[in-house]
Amino acid sequence: MKIITISREFGSGGRELGKRLSDVLGFDYYDREIVTEIAKNCGLNETYVEQELGHFAWHTIPLTFKHSFSAYYAVQSAHTGLLLEQRKVIESIAKAGRDCVIVGRNADVILREYSPLNIFVCADAASKLQRCRERADKDEHLTDKQMARKIRSIDKNRAKLREMITDAKWGDRGNYHLIVNTTGWNIKQLTFAVAEYAVRWFERG
Amino acid sequence: MKIITISREFGSGGRELGKRLSDVLGFDYYDREIVTEIAKNCGLNETYVEQELGHFAWHTIPLTFKHSFSAYYAVQSAHTGLLLEQRKVIESIAKAGRDCVIVGRNADVILREYSPLNIFVCADAASKLQRCRERADKDEHLTDKQMARKIRSIDKNRAKLREMITDAKWGDRGNYHLIVNTTGWNIKQLTFAVAEYAVRWFERG
Repeated sequence: MKIITISREFGSGGRELGKRLSDVLGFDYYDREIVTEIAKNCGLNETYVEQELGHFAWHTIPLTFKHSFSAYYAVQSAHTGLLLEQRKVIESIAKAGRDCVIVGRNADVILREYSPLNIFVCADAASKLQRCRERADKDEHLTDKQMARKIRSIDKNRAKLREMITDAKWGDRGNYHLIVNTTGWNIKQLTFAVAEYAVRWFERG
Repeated sequence: MKIITISREFGSGGRELGKRLSDVLGFDYYDREIVTEIAKNCGLNETYVEQELGHFAWHTIPLTFKHSFSAYYAVQSAHTGLLLEQRKVIESIAKAGRDCVIVGRNADVILREYSPLNIFVCADAASKLQRCRERADKDEHLTDKQMARKIRSIDKNRAKLREMITDAKWGDRGNYHLIVNTTGWNIKQLTFAVAEYAVRWFERG
């Protein structure tokens, strides 16, 4: 079984690369599907689950609940519960034994024993801003400066979420097999380059 | 003209990858050749030039010359002179207009305007130690601990030398087009994967 995990900076095109990679290689693809599964298992709303999992709870909750420790702990433990459920869902994907691409959610750490190919995707600030602008709908009102701040804040959050489960830092070169900078690439063309690399990686030995 | 620059952690196999890449792609190869050229241009001994360029002068010299400012400045300016000569030699390689692979020496920064493909090569500590052990001759007497310390110290030095000419930090993902982790790879097999990636990179548009 071959597993590719994609970690990525927000706006780098990592998700698109992951999706296309799964198409080119004929692998299953998991991203949003994981949220759907968690929501189903827990009897919760998908949007709620997605929002909760996307935030680093310890950091954000005290702003709202600062005078109520019990509420704080309740929310904190709900968050931990969702993270545990997420781990279960990701492990069950691996146990199913089918070749797949998994985007985000620290699957590289969770599935370490399955020896996945771990790819990190980055891009320079200008390209990320441009990509976010192109797909912006609900963020249309943001200025470039605000959008750039949002990009940095989402990445910071991803790094913090990762810190909860491993010392191996988010985006550090030593923790991935390949780090791809998408700046100047058309993601479709890039997909072929990465797919060839991946095929050779799985054949190495 | 296509230029590939290889920056690398000591012991990661980056030099071998660069050499093999130049063979597979039919590119010229520059590494030690740069030192030879500098030595010739300056009328200096190659070993001396190599040693000088490999050290971050500001950092190391005061240990020897701590009581003599004039000697300190003399050596410091000799070091700067060699760095300038190195820059000239690297620029002349690019001006010659032939496809090439250049290993080390911050060629990625020096040749920025030529839009090279900048690759960084890393590996985990155990692989680097093993690779150094395999090729060790003069370092045979070092214990594993001492060798590991040597590896870290050489990389630290490379990072410092780079700081002299740019804010773009050594080994930071944003400053390279591709970061390749050689752990678990046979460098010969890896070469083909990187070569294919490089070909597509130069064809992208």
